[in-house]
Amino acid sequence: MIIDCAIYRDGARARTADPGEGPQGLGFAVESLGDDEFLWIGVDDPGPEEIEDVGRALSLHPLVVEDILEPHQRPKIDRYHDYLLVSLRGVSYADDEVETHEVDVCVSARFVLTVRHGGPTLAQARAELEADPERLRHGPVSVLHAVLDRIVDGYDDVAVELETDVEEIEVSVFSEERTRDSNRIYRLKRESLEYRRAVLPLREPLARLVDAVTPREAGPYFRDVSGHLQRAVDAIEAVDSLLDNALSAHLAQLSIQQNDDMRKLTAGATLFAIPTAIAGIYGMNFHDMPELRWPFGYPLVLVIMAIGCGYAYLRFKRSGWL
Amino acid sequence: MIIDCAIYRDGARARTADPGEGPQGLGFAVESLGDDEFLWIGVDDPGPEEIEDVGRALSLHPLVVEDILEPHQRPKIDRYHDYLLVSLRGVSYADDEVETHEVDVCVSARFVLTVRHGGPTLAQARAELEADPERLRHGPVSVLHAVLDRIVDGYDDVAVELETDVEEIEVSVFSEERTRDSNRIYRLKRESLEYRRAVLPLREPLARLVDAVTPREAGPYFRDVSGHLQRAVDAIEAVDSLLDNALSAHLAQLSIQQNDDMRKLTAGATLFAIPTAIAGIYGMNFHDMPELRWPFGYPLVLVIMAIGCGYAYLRFKRSGWL
Amino acid sequence: MIIDCAIYRDGARARTADPGEGPQGLGFAVESLGDDEFLWIGVDDPGPEEIEDVGRALSLHPLVVEDILEPHQRPKIDRYHDYLLVSLRGVSYADDEVETHEVDVCVSARFVLTVRHGGPTLAQARAELEADPERLRHGPVSVLHAVLDRIVDGYDDVAVELETDVEEIEVSVFSEERTRDSNRIYRLKRESLEYRRAVLPLREPLARLVDAVTPREAGPYFRDVSGHLQRAVDAIEAVDSLLDNALSAHLAQLSIQQNDDMRKLTAGATLFAIPTAIAGIYGMNFHDMPELRWPFGYPLVLVIMAIGCGYAYLRFKRSGWL
Amino acid sequence: MIIDCAIYRDGARARTADPGEGPQGLGFAVESLGDDEFLWIGVDDPGPEEIEDVGRALSLHPLVVEDILEPHQRPKIDRYHDYLLVSLRGVSYADDEVETHEVDVCVSARFVLTVRHGGPTLAQARAELEADPERLRHGPVSVLHAVLDRIVDGYDDVAVELETDVEEIEVSVFSEERTRDSNRIYRLKRESLEYRRAVLPLREPLARLVDAVTPREAGPYFRDVSGHLQRAVDAIEAVDSLLDNALSAHLAQLSIQQNDDMRKLTAGATLFAIPTAIAGIYGMNFHDMPELRWPFGYPLVLVIMAIGCGYAYLRFKRSGWL
Amino acid sequence: MIIDCAIYRDGARARTADPGEGPQGLGFAVESLGDDEFLWIGVDDPGPEEIEDVGRALSLHPLVVEDILEPHQRPKIDRYHDYLLVSLRGVSYADDEVETHEVDVCVSARFVLTVRHGGPTLAQARAELEADPERLRHGPVSVLHAVLDRIVDGYDDVAVELETDVEEIEVSVFSEERTRDSNRIYRLKRESLEYRRAVLPLREPLARLVDAVTPREAGPYFRDVSGHLQRAVDAIEAVDSLLDNALSAHLAQLSIQQNDDMRKLTAGATLFAIPTAIAGIYGMNFHDMPELRWPFGYPLVLVIMAIGCGYAYLRFKRSGWL
Repeated sequence: MIIDCAIYRDGARARTADPGEGPQGLGFAVESLGDDEFLWIGVDDPGPEEIEDVGRALSLHPLVVEDILEPHQRPKIDRYHDYLLVSLRGVSYADDEVETHEVDVCVSARFVLTVRHGGPTLAQARAELEADPERLRHGPVSVLHAVLDRIVDGYDDVAVELETDVEEIEVSVFSEERTRDSNRIYRLKRESLEYRRAVLPLREPLARLVDAVTPREAGPYFRDVSGHLQRAVDAIEAVDSLLDNALSAHLAQLSIQQNDDMRKLTAGATLFAIPTAIAGIYGMNFHDMPELRWPFGYPLVLVIMAIGCGYAYLRFKRSGWL
Repeated sequence: MIIDCAIYRDGARARTADPGEGPQGLGFAVESLGDDEFLWIGVDDPGPEEIEDVGRALSLHPLVVEDILEPHQRPKIDRYHDYLLVSLRGVSYADDEVETHEVDVCVSARFVLTVRHGGPTLAQARAELEADPERLRHGPVSVLHAVLDRIVDGYDDVAVELETDVEEIEVSVFSEERTRDSNRIYRLKRESLEYRRAVLPLREPLARLVDAVTPREAGPYFRDVSGHLQRAVDAIEAVDSLLDNALSAHLAQLSIQQNDDMRKLTAGATLFAIPTAIAGIYGMNFHDMPELRWPFGYPLVLVIMAIGCGYAYLRFKRSGWL
Repeated sequence: MIIDCAIYRDGARARTADPGEGPQGLGFAVESLGDDEFLWIGVDDPGPEEIEDVGRALSLHPLVVEDILEPHQRPKIDRYHDYLLVSLRGVSYADDEVETHEVDVCVSARFVLTVRHGGPTLAQARAELEADPERLRHGPVSVLHAVLDRIVDGYDDVAVELETDVEEIEVSVFSEERTRDSNRIYRLKRESLEYRRAVLPLREPLARLVDAVTPREAGPYFRDVSGHLQRAVDAIEAVDSLLDNALSAHLAQLSIQQNDDMRKLTAGATLFAIPTAIAGIYGMNFHDMPELRWPFGYPLVLVIMAIGCGYAYLRFKRSGWL
Repeated sequence: MIIDCAIYRDGARARTADPGEGPQGLGFAVESLGDDEFLWIGVDDPGPEEIEDVGRALSLHPLVVEDILEPHQRPKIDRYHDYLLVSLRGVSYADDEVETHEVDVCVSARFVLTVRHGGPTLAQARAELEADPERLRHGPVSVLHAVLDRIVDGYDDVAVELETDVEEIEVSVFSEERTRDSNRIYRLKRESLEYRRAVLPLREPLARLVDAVTPREAGPYFRDVSGHLQRAVDAIEAVDSLLDNALSAHLAQLSIQQNDDMRKLTAGATLFAIPTAIAGIYGMNFHDMPELRWPFGYPLVLVIMAIGCGYAYLRFKRSGWL
Repeated sequence: MIIDCAIYRDGARARTADPGEGPQGLGFAVESLGDDEFLWIGVDDPGPEEIEDVGRALSLHPLVVEDILEPHQRPKIDRYHDYLLVSLRGVSYADDEVETHEVDVCVSARFVLTVRHGGPTLAQARAELEADPERLRHGPVSVLHAVLDRIVDGYDDVAVELETDVEEIEVSVFSEERTRDSNRIYRLKRESLEYRRAVLPLREPLARLVDAVTPREAGPYFRDVSGHLQRAVDAIEAVDSLLDNALSAHLAQLSIQQNDDMRKLTAGATLFAIPTAIAGIYGMNFHDMPELRWPFGYPLVLVIMAIGCGYAYLRFKRSGWL
């Protein structure tokens, strides 16, 4: 669905082209573009026909049309004869799950096409850009920058949430309580992998784009986005590394706790083995066992049992076994 | 066996050369090629003599003939004086096993030779290409692209199946039930290794080919294939990483379960040690044990035993030991 | 807050510009600069307005102003038309925690702006530089070098402290005593990660700066800083590697100790099982058990028990089980 | 010992130089070389004097002579003013051990010197090359190619044997039987390391040689060898990865088996604890224990014991503990 | 302390400059140098003043003087206007410890300064070089080569000793005896890390130096050193990899042994539980237990106990549990 389709001149919105007229309307809009004007077409969750119409009006390569239609593209920046196709994957984080959506930007000297598959609307980016004539004057690349900036800011936001989750996990792992964090750690690792697949492939082509973008005044803005992307990558790598740490710490603690439990149980069983053995001796039926006839034999044996158990108990305690 | 051998002009099949006439027939076909024509020879599971005949007719380098004959080549793209030898390994997935087959494409400005060792037929690729004169007009490289596209699509398909398998394993590993997933995980790791060996070596030469291919209009198509290949590589790397995760999660859970079992058994044995020790005491044969003569001595001791066991049982339960 | 704002000529402080007059004052100072003079503005923990004023006076790019204001930048060196923005993260180490603070340096041929967010003051660097006309004569880059040098020296100091901590841990891990070092190791790993994030991103742009710096006589000084940075990176990588070693050594020793404990307990329980079993036999109530009537039956059985236990005890001792 | 020393022209052996005459003989041979001739000297396990004589006759650099004499060189390709020194390490596999031997080839436009330290003879390579005038016509580099081809084929052979060993190990590890595979796995890892040290350093210089070799017609032959080498490297990396897998699978299974054993033993001991505790109770000597006088007291207790044990046994069985 | 200070011409020592005259003496020596002469100053464990004097006489950059004075430099090769500063770390191995010492070489077309901080003397290198006019004729770089060669030979020696240690450890780990090798392995890993820090940073700048050295005839000598260095790096990487292997093998064996011990103990305790349970039954005081009155009741029960224990013992033996 074509959301907005406007012509810009001199850093300001000049007029709105009516997208309702279909491909012909777009075609007219393109033909009517003055030398210092450019067209920005915003499309949301388009169907195949819509994209094919737009592609025809803008003379896009069939592969570009295919790329825009096909979901789950790998992020990339492809240079065609006189335009650029930028496929991006935005990320968002909800309920411990990283979700991604695709945004394609096709940018030439005369037009820019932004296509959004799911995810938050780009209307705000358009409004902000229209309010900043200085940047809008850079032409279509200013739109590309605005979209990139928004997407990469989303990377930052998700990275911060992942870092917060990791910190929660670390607190839980290193607490004295017995916790079961492993499943959550594994799930976070999976999500961080999803995130990496959305973010990492963009890094290199974006860095290359910084040097190639025209006009040259737009360069620092793209370098700024590239720097933010790099920071997001650093953050996710730190998250990964911390998760690995947290996992091995958790497993180590779990193993120590389980061993402690076993040791306590075994120490307990060993304690009971002492009176059992002594009692066994005086339960024997020998005819001649003088102790049995001693007047204080029984209490004496009870005392001996108590001393034996008590001594063992103290030693176990001192060794940290109980 | 020569499957099809046709001459193309202007994006359409012009005439079929009769491969039945052997090397002479091929030689005549090559000689009869007009300036704007090219020959496409399709060969399936060839014997040495066939390939040598074809090599002689097309003046192929002895090493090319050897490479085509020798099975289990490493995927590669070799540039010869005026043609290119592309060795590919297609993959398929059946019964949890990745299987590979080899496809060699030898492409010059005037001819293209496709040789298939096992795997699915390329007839469909030829049919589709003959139905698309626009692409066929790019000449022999369009055939190379069609074959590459088919093979790389196969990579995608297998990657998706591997990812599905990994998800099944993850569900099984993280379920409450006690499962034995390790062998399946190890087997999947092996298969992913097989897959990598087929896919990874192609990545770099294909990326280089994108910039070098003629005519230049064919470039974006090869870049598209290269992008798909990269996506397949990303996918298999994610599969690998998830398998590692799943394996360590599985082993950790297994170890926790086994420890739980041992703890329960030991706790049970410790429970029985309590009445045994008490009973041992009152089984002693001392002449003077006043409790033995108490009218309620016996039931009292039974009650004490029950309380001791019950108390221990409750503590074990509360500690999660039983 | 503008800390100091002075004009330098010929390697010496020529005059102090009064920063109290606000942006106008700075503007006058810039305009009044002679051909062979440069301005050094030092700012500490600035507010947005201050930075915007300074940016307007020095005609800085809006992105530079934003970068200086935004905390937690990634270390970077960005080249603008006629000046350089260098964002640094200084590190300090207190209470087993690595803390970072940001320093931004904006350097052109005519001015240098140093902005400090937290961390120790740069006044000393200014004093030292003013005392060394030889270096100050290199112009604004000498200020950049002085700041870099100070920051990178801080990297070295922290690396040394981390190495000391690692050595303490190693002594503790490899001592005969039973220690609980894992939490400290994990915390140190986290700190070393923090350190890496502050230090590593600077390495590459700094190495590139070495070749690009003007005047060329300043090159060796920057190479020297770059070498120190590299040494700090080497040190932190060694720390990381040693921590991994120490951790696995600690876990291995812990597991050995726990196993030793369990073995001792089980060996103890097994020792008591011997007299219990023998006593059980002579506690049976068979009418005809000749041993029971033997005059030395009882002491004999006691001796047999003692021998059995003693023999087992010696064997366990010799196997290292007790 | 000089094995063979012949002069070749036009792809055929022209005449044999008599190596018996020592350095003078070789000098004469070199001087007598026609413009389109080259000399091939084959040396086996030479002594220092022999190599020094040859070096003097061919005006080799002292470092070349040293490299040829010194055993256990790292594989390398060194370019001197007008010749190339290629040091290779051939590998062979016997009794689960990778053994290496050194072959040095010194090749200029006019001569080629092949020196073998141990390992299989190169006589066959010479015979094959003399039977193929087409390749021999490429001059001395054809000899270099023949030797390289032979050595790299050996890499392939050993890689195949290592892969077979790994497959045997995998079958053993994943079998139901209890096996002790770890030592063999560790030994194979060591051998694969030895193999890597012989093979890996050659990869990069050989790839560079492919582009630099003259005459250019020889290029594809070297590229072919380089491809084979790459395949051998791929194979050894797969071997390494599979060994790691197999090892961790083996250790995991071992740990599971040992835990199973312990659980069975503990479950057995727990089973016996039940009748012991019950019997203990009826072994007490209280004067008033009514059950003792019941006519069916004894069989009833036996039945209760049997039921208790049987119930526990069934539960243990159902939990997989016995 | 200036050890030796001589002027060389035409590959031979021309005359000795008297270093006793201090900086003036050195200054005269430098001034008196003929066009085809060079000065070699050898300094051992110098104090700050000495180095400052030398630096003034040779017009060295202040950073060079600082680098020479500051201990524990990272190995590096820095190019100054018309000379080169090479900082090296020699290694030696004593009592299972890798020790390093620093050697700095400052080399221009007219002089070479060698400064040694600890470590073995370089006098022998000077003597050898003076005995080889061919190499000495290359000028100051021949001195640099001689020092490098000596240092890198030391790398080789230490690598060989480390490899020997690893082999000893492997024999110990894979022996049938119960050994405690982990501490030694960890210590060796630490030493290998120390070694890497001394050796690795030199690799890249040395490789670059090979192409840049003048005169060009000296190139092969530096390439030779670079190759040796590479071999030392290979060796230490193999050592590292073998240590990792040995460690995990050792830990695996330790865990197996400990489990074996526990199993034996538990099996022993389980054996004793059998007669205890049976004896318990016949120790019950039921009035009517017919077996008690059987004439052969007692021996029969003893036989049953023996059979039970014997059967269990045999089964445990056959399962490898005892």
